[in-house]
Amino acid sequence: MFLIRNLTRVSPTTSSIVTRFRNSGSSSSPYTLASRFCTAQETQIQSPASSNGVDRSQYEGLRPTREGEKPRVVVLGSGWAGCRLMKGIDTSLYDVVCVSPRNHMVFTPLLASTCVGTLEFRSVAEPITSIQPAISREPGSYFFLANCSRLDADAHEVHCETLPDGLDTLKPRKFKIAYDKLVVASGAEASTFGIHGVMENAIFLREVHHAQEIRRKLLLNLMLSDTPCLPKEEKQRLLHCVVVGGGPTGVEFSGELSDFIKKDVRQRYSHVKDDIHVTLIEARDILSSFDDRLRRYAIKQLNKSGVRFVRGIVKDVMPQKLILDDGTEVPYGLLVWSTGVGPSPFVRSLGLPKDPGGRLVHQDHSIRPFFAIFFCISSLIPFVLCYWPIKVAEREGKYLANLLNEIAKANGGRANSAKEIELGVPFVYKHLGSMATIGRYKALVDLRESKDAKGISMTGFVSWFIWRSAYLTRVISWRNRFYVAINWFTTFVFGRDISRI
Amino acid sequence: MFLIRNLTRVSPTTSSIVTRFRNSGSSSSPYTLASRFCTAQETQIQSPASSNGVDRSQYEGLRPTREGEKPRVVVLGSGWAGCRLMKGIDTSLYDVVCVSPRNHMVFTPLLASTCVGTLEFRSVAEPITSIQPAISREPGSYFFLANCSRLDADAHEVHCETLPDGLDTLKPRKFKIAYDKLVVASGAEASTFGIHGVMENAIFLREVHHAQEIRRKLLLNLMLSDTPCLPKEEKQRLLHCVVVGGGPTGVEFSGELSDFIKKDVRQRYSHVKDDIHVTLIEARDILSSFDDRLRRYAIKQLNKSGVRFVRGIVKDVMPQKLILDDGTEVPYGLLVWSTGVGPSPFVRSLGLPKDPGGRLVHQDHSIRPFFAIFFCISSLIPFVLCYWPIKVAEREGKYLANLLNEIAKANGGRANSAKEIELGVPFVYKHLGSMATIGRYKALVDLRESKDAKGISMTGFVSWFIWRSAYLTRVISWRNRFYVAINWFTTFVFGRDISRI
Repeated sequence: MFLIRNLTRVSPTTSSIVTRFRNSGSSSSPYTLASRFCTAQETQIQSPASSNGVDRSQYEGLRPTREGEKPRVVVLGSGWAGCRLMKGIDTSLYDVVCVSPRNHMVFTPLLASTCVGTLEFRSVAEPITSIQPAISREPGSYFFLANCSRLDADAHEVHCETLPDGLDTLKPRKFKIAYDKLVVASGAEASTFGIHGVMENAIFLREVHHAQEIRRKLLLNLMLSDTPCLPKEEKQRLLHCVVVGGGPTGVEFSGELSDFIKKDVRQRYSHVKDDIHVTLIEARDILSSFDDRLRRYAIKQLNKSGVRFVRGIVKDVMPQKLILDDGTEVPYGLLVWSTGVGPSPFVRSLGLPKDPGGRLVHQDHSIRPFFAIFFCISSLIPFVLCYWPIKVAEREGKYLANLLNEIAKANGGRANSAKEIELGVPFVYKHLGSMATIGRYKALVDLRESKDAKGISMTGFVSWFIWRSAYLTRVISWRNRFYVAINWFTTFVFGRDISRI
Repeated sequence: MFLIRNLTRVSPTTSSIVTRFRNSGSSSSPYTLASRFCTAQETQIQSPASSNGVDRSQYEGLRPTREGEKPRVVVLGSGWAGCRLMKGIDTSLYDVVCVSPRNHMVFTPLLASTCVGTLEFRSVAEPITSIQPAISREPGSYFFLANCSRLDADAHEVHCETLPDGLDTLKPRKFKIAYDKLVVASGAEASTFGIHGVMENAIFLREVHHAQEIRRKLLLNLMLSDTPCLPKEEKQRLLHCVVVGGGPTGVEFSGELSDFIKKDVRQRYSHVKDDIHVTLIEARDILSSFDDRLRRYAIKQLNKSGVRFVRGIVKDVMPQKLILDDGTEVPYGLLVWSTGVGPSPFVRSLGLPKDPGGRLVHQDHSIRPFFAIFFCISSLIPFVLCYWPIKVAEREGKYLANLLNEIAKANGGRANSAKEIELGVPFVYKHLGSMATIGRYKALVDLRESKDAKGISMTGFVSWFIWRSAYLTRVISWRNRFYVAINWFTTFVFGRDISRI
């Protein structure tokens, strides 16, 4: 494995140190030896400008691929597009390197269900190595838990930094990765529209740790609200769950929450069951991507479940209450924010043409040398406009994987070697419909190309069944498919789990 | 429900405030109203010495039970003894109030399996309300997420404080609970023997959040160790898992870890598989509660799995290495500490006779008025000496539940009303044997009363099968029994989950 071979070459000094140490203690045991290495190495790491003023270890990385080695596809991000692409890449043609701050893909359509325990967190998290096993097997394929800090398109390099995740286990390390093909699928970030206090007080719903945070806070509030002699209004505040944003995520979460309240809170928290409420705040119409008939149905059903709708714009968010533009104060115990997303700082930092929304523009043939880059661009769009169904991202990943495979077969795998290859038909997204669940075994299914087009659109239990079946078949691994089914079964039979761990 | 009735009486001032507010915004919606309450209330809470210098809400609680109400058993803690007791209490005779910093019981024998994903965390956590459903149903029974700060035996009261768990959701609130019978089952705490750096750098293995922390750190280290050009010795340090303490917990964790390495790391982290090692450090003999034949077998098997044993005493623990008494430095990436437990600060604070080990002494008939208290004492022992099999705690809980039920039937349920009731035979623990798994489908089972007594003691696969069956049947709820079985099945078929969530 060339990386390991490199390693031995990287630190000749530290290697030579070993021989000079007397191996005290249990001389047979390697860790004593290792401790000498570390002591030597730690000092080196602690002083970035050590020895001749340059710490070489800070500027190492994966060097450009050579003749005889497979070309390298570097994928930034582990979302729907990136993972579908990695799944589709022919690993006999390419080495795959994934750089992402998380080692799994989140099955986002089912994330809202995990916040209240309908599903378990692990059932919606798919390890990248089970999506593309070559990453853990092939000597030239890797997953790096890191952030990409800079893109050097001229040198065909990305600059990364490891994420020790706040743990004192390894100091952050910078490294470079040379790529032959690059796919930027690093996604977007939740948008707060610059509203004060959102980042500090609200919880988003995009990652598994968000769902964990929501579940822990919800259960905490349910328990604290039962504290003896807690004033009734304080109890009501603790138990007031506010959701800002009436898109599918916000609506599905509200539906799950009202299911949880109706079925589980009534039974397991009978002391406080009458004080818990859900409020959904939206500036415009909820589920605006669905037509009026479906929207009216959704609103009726959610009202039946006790979800209150408030049309308003949030002006300010404080630790225990938020203020609407008409001055109304909304005290809350739990605040979930799902008002869409915007481009991530990394995407903003890319020196590539963008549209006013900060989204990278499509294939710009004027930057033909950056062949590798402008392909990536399409796979950004579903993340930037992520109120589009995730099917877009997935299909883009698939399209790009096939295209890259074709290019490699035409000997265009290496950097800058595909300039003359015909790129074929560009990716065009064809909308096949939308689905959203609204709790109480009900959902909306719209299989039409647009709101006004002819086609099937339905509501109710059948839709809910279609929704569940559709997603159950779409969960990536058999393991998780099995777990999702088991979770649904146990939730139905035993109710949701309320242990706060 | 008298508590709620009290509530309305607690804050007449704030109630009267409401009428004076004009309900701006959507006047129908209760949250605006609530916001006024909160605003008024928050200020009151923020100033403990508000109004007449005394904040009444700080000194409220559950008042003593009256004629016509059921007597109240207050249980401090939610471990094996406390939970078994709550399960056994006849809730037609008593109201049950549980005060604990966690709302679930941890099935500790299987906790080590969750650190590497053999089992999921929720499969070993049992919500208290499913152990004793009356707590969520009966108007006079409660669970409080709180710590007990003081015990006033004369007034038959415990003083508690809520645990907002670092979240800005509700300021900590003090309250009192009057009891008729009190059971102190608040357990012990991990002992560090005053060794510097243990609390800061080592992870214990007693709670679910410990197991979560271990799993997250282990997976993080596995990924970071694959960083390009990381010096080999740094890589080896990151991948060096050190376990201090050779009791059943330490040994079972080492076994699980070596299983994880043998089966999953080799497949999923092939780049680093040869650099990961497990070291078990113990000052005396490992598994000292088992006889020599079983211990020799365990050591042989663990050696085969690649676990290194080091006999030594830890002198100092630093962020990335520990020092043994002979000066040997042991660099580590993950450090798990399981060297037994000692009495908790609360137990130490109790003004009751203790033995030199800080353990409360058994039934002291000289303190007969503290009838309620000295019964609790027996249920402390297994926690203080928790290297005893947890069956002790469980059987004590059962014994105490039956005794309390008998006492209530003899009209001794109220505080100080049972002085003349015969207490019957005191609890005596009869050792029925010990079990420990050592990984690789192997375990130790010793069904003898003592190491030297006659009886069955066996090792190997059959023992492992007995171990699993025994614990599977002992898991409290059918839900978790089902999940444990499913987890074992999926781990066997699909391997362990490595998504770091």
